[in-house]
Amino acid sequence: MGTSLNRVEEEDYSSYTNSSDFISISLEDNNNTTKTATSTSKSSSELHPVCLPPHVTTWQKLNHRLREIFFPDDPLHIFKDQSWRRKLVLAFQYVFPILRWAPHYSLSLFRSDLIAGLTIASLAIPQGISYAKLANLQPIIGLYSSFVPPIVYSVLGSSRHIGIGPVSVASLVMGTMLDGEVSHSNKKDLYLELAFTSTLFAGLFQASLGIFRLGFIIDFLSKATLIGFMAGAAVIVSLQQLKGLLGITHFTSDMELIPVLESVFNSIKEWKWETIVMGFCFLIFLLVARFISTRKPRLFWVSAAAPLTSVILSSLLIFLLKSKLKHVSIIGHLPKGVNPTSENKLYFHGPHLQLAIKTGIITGILSLTEGIAVGRTFASLHNYQVDGNKEMIAIGFMNIVGCCFSCYVTTGSFSRSAVNYNAGAKTIFSNIVMAATVLVTLLFLMPLFHYTPDFVLAAIIITAVVGLVDYKAALRLWKLDKLDFVACCCSFFGVLFISVQIGLAIAVGVSVFKIILHVTRPNTVVLGNIPGTQIFRSLNHYENATRVPSFLILSIESPIFFANSLYLQERISRWVRGEENRIRENNESALKCVILDMTAVTAIDTSGIDAISELKKNMDKRSLQLALVNLVGTVMEKLHQSKTLDSFRSKGLYLTVGEAVDDLSSSWKHWP
Amino acid sequence: MGTSLNRVEEEDYSSYTNSSDFISISLEDNNNTTKTATSTSKSSSELHPVCLPPHVTTWQKLNHRLREIFFPDDPLHIFKDQSWRRKLVLAFQYVFPILRWAPHYSLSLFRSDLIAGLTIASLAIPQGISYAKLANLQPIIGLYSSFVPPIVYSVLGSSRHIGIGPVSVASLVMGTMLDGEVSHSNKKDLYLELAFTSTLFAGLFQASLGIFRLGFIIDFLSKATLIGFMAGAAVIVSLQQLKGLLGITHFTSDMELIPVLESVFNSIKEWKWETIVMGFCFLIFLLVARFISTRKPRLFWVSAAAPLTSVILSSLLIFLLKSKLKHVSIIGHLPKGVNPTSENKLYFHGPHLQLAIKTGIITGILSLTEGIAVGRTFASLHNYQVDGNKEMIAIGFMNIVGCCFSCYVTTGSFSRSAVNYNAGAKTIFSNIVMAATVLVTLLFLMPLFHYTPDFVLAAIIITAVVGLVDYKAALRLWKLDKLDFVACCCSFFGVLFISVQIGLAIAVGVSVFKIILHVTRPNTVVLGNIPGTQIFRSLNHYENATRVPSFLILSIESPIFFANSLYLQERISRWVRGEENRIRENNESALKCVILDMTAVTAIDTSGIDAISELKKNMDKRSLQLALVNLVGTVMEKLHQSKTLDSFRSKGLYLTVGEAVDDLSSSWKHWP
Repeated sequence: MGTSLNRVEEEDYSSYTNSSDFISISLEDNNNTTKTATSTSKSSSELHPVCLPPHVTTWQKLNHRLREIFFPDDPLHIFKDQSWRRKLVLAFQYVFPILRWAPHYSLSLFRSDLIAGLTIASLAIPQGISYAKLANLQPIIGLYSSFVPPIVYSVLGSSRHIGIGPVSVASLVMGTMLDGEVSHSNKKDLYLELAFTSTLFAGLFQASLGIFRLGFIIDFLSKATLIGFMAGAAVIVSLQQLKGLLGITHFTSDMELIPVLESVFNSIKEWKWETIVMGFCFLIFLLVARFISTRKPRLFWVSAAAPLTSVILSSLLIFLLKSKLKHVSIIGHLPKGVNPTSENKLYFHGPHLQLAIKTGIITGILSLTEGIAVGRTFASLHNYQVDGNKEMIAIGFMNIVGCCFSCYVTTGSFSRSAVNYNAGAKTIFSNIVMAATVLVTLLFLMPLFHYTPDFVLAAIIITAVVGLVDYKAALRLWKLDKLDFVACCCSFFGVLFISVQIGLAIAVGVSVFKIILHVTRPNTVVLGNIPGTQIFRSLNHYENATRVPSFLILSIESPIFFANSLYLQERISRWVRGEENRIRENNESALKCVILDMTAVTAIDTSGIDAISELKKNMDKRSLQLALVNLVGTVMEKLHQSKTLDSFRSKGLYLTVGEAVDDLSSSWKHWP
Repeated sequence: MGTSLNRVEEEDYSSYTNSSDFISISLEDNNNTTKTATSTSKSSSELHPVCLPPHVTTWQKLNHRLREIFFPDDPLHIFKDQSWRRKLVLAFQYVFPILRWAPHYSLSLFRSDLIAGLTIASLAIPQGISYAKLANLQPIIGLYSSFVPPIVYSVLGSSRHIGIGPVSVASLVMGTMLDGEVSHSNKKDLYLELAFTSTLFAGLFQASLGIFRLGFIIDFLSKATLIGFMAGAAVIVSLQQLKGLLGITHFTSDMELIPVLESVFNSIKEWKWETIVMGFCFLIFLLVARFISTRKPRLFWVSAAAPLTSVILSSLLIFLLKSKLKHVSIIGHLPKGVNPTSENKLYFHGPHLQLAIKTGIITGILSLTEGIAVGRTFASLHNYQVDGNKEMIAIGFMNIVGCCFSCYVTTGSFSRSAVNYNAGAKTIFSNIVMAATVLVTLLFLMPLFHYTPDFVLAAIIITAVVGLVDYKAALRLWKLDKLDFVACCCSFFGVLFISVQIGLAIAVGVSVFKIILHVTRPNTVVLGNIPGTQIFRSLNHYENATRVPSFLILSIESPIFFANSLYLQERISRWVRGEENRIRENNESALKCVILDMTAVTAIDTSGIDAISELKKNMDKRSLQLALVNLVGTVMEKLHQSKTLDSFRSKGLYLTVGEAVDDLSSSWKHWP
């Protein structure tokens, strides 16, 4: 019977080489003749055919791959099987999500949105003024930026709980990058032009990422690196605020830790005690308010109202004591009126264009990361979908429009969105309420900010960025994934000691290196049989798994690429050497066969193919059989095309490890 | 019985949370009560426990990882269980592999090596002269480089068939890079100093890669990119040789296609017909000789002897007709004598140091790649091991010593090694024979090369580099792996149209991008049951696999990293949506459970962990069960540490897909 089995296999094999789409190893039932020492579960000792995947043309493959890269979420699925009229409505709703909820808008929704809108406005006004200062811009630009962009987003955006406005990290990065080349104090007009131009480029970059469906690029700023980056930026921003809190007049515009600290301690003579006392009082007040709100989310309004309260109180204080507190630096005169247009202030020719583009791209990607993360967080809390690429287009357009109306880079802000959500916002209409409130402020209330002192703005900024230092998340990284923690530390120290751009680059580099490292040195695991089953699992992991005599069963835990093909060859040889030594020491039966479980080998390239055929030759020289188990479709196809599978004829390809062990050991029984 | 089963599971689960090293899902035998519509093989319906891998400390993990990165081949295994004296002997043999074979050297081995050595010498002498010209060095430097380095390698190297000497690509790159900054014709001495200094840095770089066991870095120059790079370099080199073949005197030193072609056709007036006629005659002679040898490997000596024959014939011709052929450019006077020392010609201070370092590193890595590949190729033909890192140290030292004896960058050359091998070399002693022959030439025969014409050197170079255009290999890439082919084309056109360095950088970039792309957009595959078994395989691949009603079984074919965690979440949602639509259309039984086969998820990072818990929440909201099957040890450990596994309590973790399907569908039977 054994001979006939062998013949059947060879016939089947030749049929495969002829038809080249079916590799049948054996279709015959071996019944009880295949009883081996190793496998105890005998009911399914029948071998199942290993076949090639159906043929797919290169064009189909390319099409599939491109779809997976650019349209993984199949954005057109909503249009499927709809009438033309319905398709048109859906398309309009897709482009302008406002059309989805506006028709069903009700009074009760409006009541919630009104309260939420007024609450975030009370936060947005002092934040806008402070963040504009962080970007070395006049405070009024921060208010302009809290008026136009939220309105644009309301029409185009699909998040319901986001709060739009300038954010600390993007403001800081823009401020540092531009000020490094063009001084904001000496060349005020040029600086302003560059800020608007950077905003334009940020918007263009964001929108084009969305339009060309390259949104996945922001995924490369992994959470781990962002935690480090944010914390580093927060530390720098806080230290820079010492300028305002200590009342220093001459301060570095550098962003690294060491020059900032030097600046603080070199100008110790400039420190003003009145500013210090008042500044720290308000800082403590704000921090306490923040602490209360983080402890009890119901009291969100405490931290939401605290900044405006501080601004009002401190302005009153300075106004009343203005004769005694002459040295305290204040905002001063602010122009009244709605956003002036600024499309004539865009800078397209000249030596600083490259700087504007670079600043635009970096602030664009940073603000996008924050905006998308905010949108996704609140969407997942309320179980609705936010389409990343769609959001990028909305945020991008918001910045493109914004830069024509004297706004600088804006995005969805964590702090505003949290307040908005807690204040009970139901739709994005709360942002329109906020914009209206800011408009009223711009038209009528600007003179009230004349006496607002700089120290209170510094205190507001510090309170806002303190939340960015997420040490708990960093601890979690340390606990769960040491390499993620290293990436986090790299970006933290990179930002702190080198520069924002290099910190970011290091962070992305470390993240990519992590992937490469995993592929370059993949795990190879020895499998053993779980007694009484046909299941084979790692000997290290499952202590009850036992080695199968005469077999070395290895699972390769990575695709085989040029970067690891040599390593895997060497590593497998070493496993074989180790196994032979172990067998010699324990006087067990000699090694006869190496089985590679290829389940996790999900791709292979030409170097990988060569590695497999080298390995096969190598094993042949050592008179060891080599069997491949559970080849994935694409891998099998490539091995077949390269004729590598030919050398695995009969007794070389199996569907499961169990079948391989059964079949090979039974064949040795027949021909010892 | 069902209730008791449930209780058992919960008890087992609580025992796991207490002891935290064992998650037992169910140990009870369900016997025939678990008969489901789907699984037909009932004998092994017993569930097997899923357990956590044994605890490993961070230090052990780090230790293991570092070992795998730097010592994958376990280089110290030969010292294991040996006496101290034996260890000492082995250590000496390890450092100086000559000690391994020299004691057993015999007359018959010597006879083979002598013939092979004389054969490669006849190739090495004209090649040395030609390649030195390629590097813009005096021809004698090429001969010096064929004398000292082979001797050093013989002592330190472990390959037996390698032929040491200068190689075309490294010579070309060195020539271009140095000449770009320092003209070889105007600043002869400085150029020579920089060449020796680059050689020193190449050697230092190579040796330190080996010493620090970073040899795997050269694996990142994948075969695919090297095929493109070599072909591009060969085209450029061949075109540059038109200078010699056409007898042009004014020629560009640029390396890109366009300036070279411009140079050829702009100087059409300088073309000399005598040079052209003779040059092409010798070129055809050499190409025919090469063709004969590639067709019949037995006739290897035809192509081995052809260059020297050409040199002798052409020199004789020029000598005899020197009155008539005055315009033909010849080598001219060459100094007699053995290598002069050159350690005083090394350049360590000054503006060009950076150039020397850069050139050293690039030529170092290129020549290393060729040398290691040659060593490995012939080692695998004769079934002996070549330790990559060890070889790098040998090649590095050879260059460090070389640069002190007027040699430039050398390595194992493909053409010489092939001739050496075919000529029957048995040990590396053939290189010593070659060195001795070169020594005799240096001492006595140099005047004979006075009349050697440049055109014959050009013809020799072209014949040598023609073999680097491996269009068959490129076709194979196209057939097997389109992305590999793209990488190959990128490096080919990069070298041809931009520059050697940028071409190389593009090639490495494309290769890395390929890995990143695979990880960023991994496959997710729907599995189906192969009738009559407990085996689940891809529905696309195995046409006989059938869907299991109420189940969606997905296999995730990649580790889950930050770069793909969002994609996978979206993609799985889309699979669920698609499956629900399909079920609605076909009126099948509703979807109840999503099973993720995690066999190929060989690693996970913190973003991946978050993705799994998001996914679980998402499925809970849709009232779908989520089960994870066959978690790999490290993944399981991380999910456990992050408490994500807690939400998978009972009915969420299984060892095989079959068991998951059986257990879940039987539990629905009991509580419908």
